[in-house]
Amino acid sequence: FVATVRPMAEATLAVIGGDGIGPEVTAEAVKVIEAVTGPGVFDRVDYDLGATRWQRTGEVLPDSVMAELDTADAILLGAVGAAPGATDVPSGLLERGLLLKLRFAFDHYVNLRPSKLYPGSVSPLADPGEIDFVVVREGTEGLYCGNGGVVRAGTPNEIATEVSVNTALGVERVVRDAFARAVARRGKLTLVHKHNVLVNAGGLWRRIFEQVAAEFPGVQTDYLHVDAATIFLATDPSRFDVIVTDNLFGDIITDLAAAVTGGIGLACSGNVNPEGTHPSMFEPVHGSAPDIAGRQIADPTAAILSGALLLEHLGRSAEAEEINKAVIADLADRRPGTTRRTAEVGDAIAAAVG
Amino acid sequence: FVATVRPMAEATLAVIGGDGIGPEVTAEAVKVIEAVTGPGVFDRVDYDLGATRWQRTGEVLPDSVMAELDTADAILLGAVGAAPGATDVPSGLLERGLLLKLRFAFDHYVNLRPSKLYPGSVSPLADPGEIDFVVVREGTEGLYCGNGGVVRAGTPNEIATEVSVNTALGVERVVRDAFARAVARRGKLTLVHKHNVLVNAGGLWRRIFEQVAAEFPGVQTDYLHVDAATIFLATDPSRFDVIVTDNLFGDIITDLAAAVTGGIGLACSGNVNPEGTHPSMFEPVHGSAPDIAGRQIADPTAAILSGALLLEHLGRSAEAEEINKAVIADLADRRPGTTRRTAEVGDAIAAAVG
Ligand SMILES: CC(C)[C@H](C(=O)O)[C@@H](O)C(=O)O
Ligand SMILES: CC(C)[C@H](C(=O)O)[C@@H](O)C(=O)O
Repeated sequence: FVATVRPMAEATLAVIGGDGIGPEVTAEAVKVIEAVTGPGVFDRVDYDLGATRWQRTGEVLPDSVMAELDTADAILLGAVGAAPGATDVPSGLLERGLLLKLRFAFDHYVNLRPSKLYPGSVSPLADPGEIDFVVVREGTEGLYCGNGGVVRAGTPNEIATEVSVNTALGVERVVRDAFARAVARRGKLTLVHKHNVLVNAGGLWRRIFEQVAAEFPGVQTDYLHVDAATIFLATDPSRFDVIVTDNLFGDIITDLAAAVTGGIGLACSGNVNPEGTHPSMFEPVHGSAPDIAGRQIADPTAAILSGALLLEHLGRSAEAEEINKAVIADLADRRPGTTRRTAEVGDAIAAAVG
Repeated sequence: FVATVRPMAEATLAVIGGDGIGPEVTAEAVKVIEAVTGPGVFDRVDYDLGATRWQRTGEVLPDSVMAELDTADAILLGAVGAAPGATDVPSGLLERGLLLKLRFAFDHYVNLRPSKLYPGSVSPLADPGEIDFVVVREGTEGLYCGNGGVVRAGTPNEIATEVSVNTALGVERVVRDAFARAVARRGKLTLVHKHNVLVNAGGLWRRIFEQVAAEFPGVQTDYLHVDAATIFLATDPSRFDVIVTDNLFGDIITDLAAAVTGGIGLACSGNVNPEGTHPSMFEPVHGSAPDIAGRQIADPTAAILSGALLLEHLGRSAEAEEINKAVIADLADRRPGTTRRTAEVGDAIAAAVG
């Protein structure tokens, strides 16, 4: 027989479209990635995971799939989450069983969420100023551990607990990462916590933050309680350069940050394992938006920018930069009131980088 | 001997000025309360509590003071919290030992935080719309319980935990209160939580919310994850009427709500014990702002509005309404760029209600 010899790809890209608008926006991110790298660079493997698969097969994330994903060089994820009406999907099933499972198993301790107000995107703030900061959200600890439980479930005497677990190891590694990023940026790092109430976790975060700060005398540091941080995000977001915070606070303030920089449709993120012991995973901050799914009206920009973060992580900085530039140009061209189909946005950006 | 017979006051008002700007703004709230009720209605007792007292005496809240406070009809609080430089005050000492101690001991399970954009106050949002909602924040449970601890403290292997405790009793009573408020307002109630991650606590909150909702068919309900709620607060705050949420989420979103309605200088709150088994306590949402303390530049409006909430709670609705009207008129008159001393603002509002 005659074998078709295909040049070996440089890297494996696992793609999990997920639910709702996830597959649509991910398709555009893949289109742009393949346009900028040219063909043959990535071996792409698509994984059918999410609410739809669970409803069909009862499987969330089989061990064999997990093992396969672990061999990828990077993962691109759309979004997971069933439609609100889907009462057959237990709350948290996909979050805990898929998204958080990957973040925890692959030790994605740096959840990287840049916030930048690009020309052409509209902030809800009257006077947003120049917004350009990055949130380093811890990704493997805190209230996201899944510790906690229920006593006397379903009775009038139910007690439900949630336990936030914070370790010196976990806090130190993410704080170090944040300091390094601050050095590479404008040299300012803000710790966000709530140490006046969460004295145990807050004490640990503060102590480690101060210890590591001593090694980075060039970085200007400050501290904000999470409640005060939301005020500054709404009134003076240009004050921030790098923010480091725990898993839950990071979840909350990055949605707010996305809102003030023109919306969740633009916010990208990376779940990064800096040592590369497992693949890192890149995803838009937005959810599966089941209400608009399948209609080609979702904005794929966040997914495309997540693709740029992915390339950057794999050391392909020039290509990442090309995507960012093309997105910035595309955003600047957008006219309020006009809309393009999801694929049209992807086509335009792919053409610009192709 | 000749006794001076003074008519008996109708109620006892305990006043805790506290730290930083607390005493200054509280003095104006007292001034306005006494102007609107006329003399002799309240027996006022001032309590010297807070960082300054602790630094002087080592006492945070002696049991005897606690017992006395418990006999008051209502408490007016300024703010507690030492200056950031005061390294002799351990983090959380005053919060846990004073503010939260009172909230918990006096069973202030309804932490009431109205948000209203008044004419004349400036929102950072370009298009804020008509903002008028109230957050019913749970006040006696969740991560504020003070459960948690530290293992191997101060070592590189430290583990710090925080436990969120949620009970059916605690959730149900605050949810009921929120439904009742929604009925008395525009009939809309939003539950804010994060049940896709905090499945134990979130499950309890959702189940009870749905159970109580069945008794209030006239109330339109919806649910938002806390991260999504911050987006709506920044992009469409007029969608809210009543929000009910847990202690920590309530802390975070009410600061954001204050920001979008013109700033923390205007946000009032009530720590309410609806059954009246202990006195309720009213305080501005802002903190002690040690950086501007003693300079008569703090805005006393939040404290004055908290005074109105206090009167309302004591059944003196007409007087509360008078204060609110005077504040609204005062706000409408304020000219951006001009400033008045703290006491001048109080004088103006006191004169208007006097
Ligand atoms: C879907 C959910 C579990 C997730 C989170 O809370 O981390 C999402 O909100 C995010 O920010 O990525
Ligand atoms: C001072 C602090 C303990 C308090 C809280 O977190 O409740 C404050 O932020 C508030 O909102 O009243």
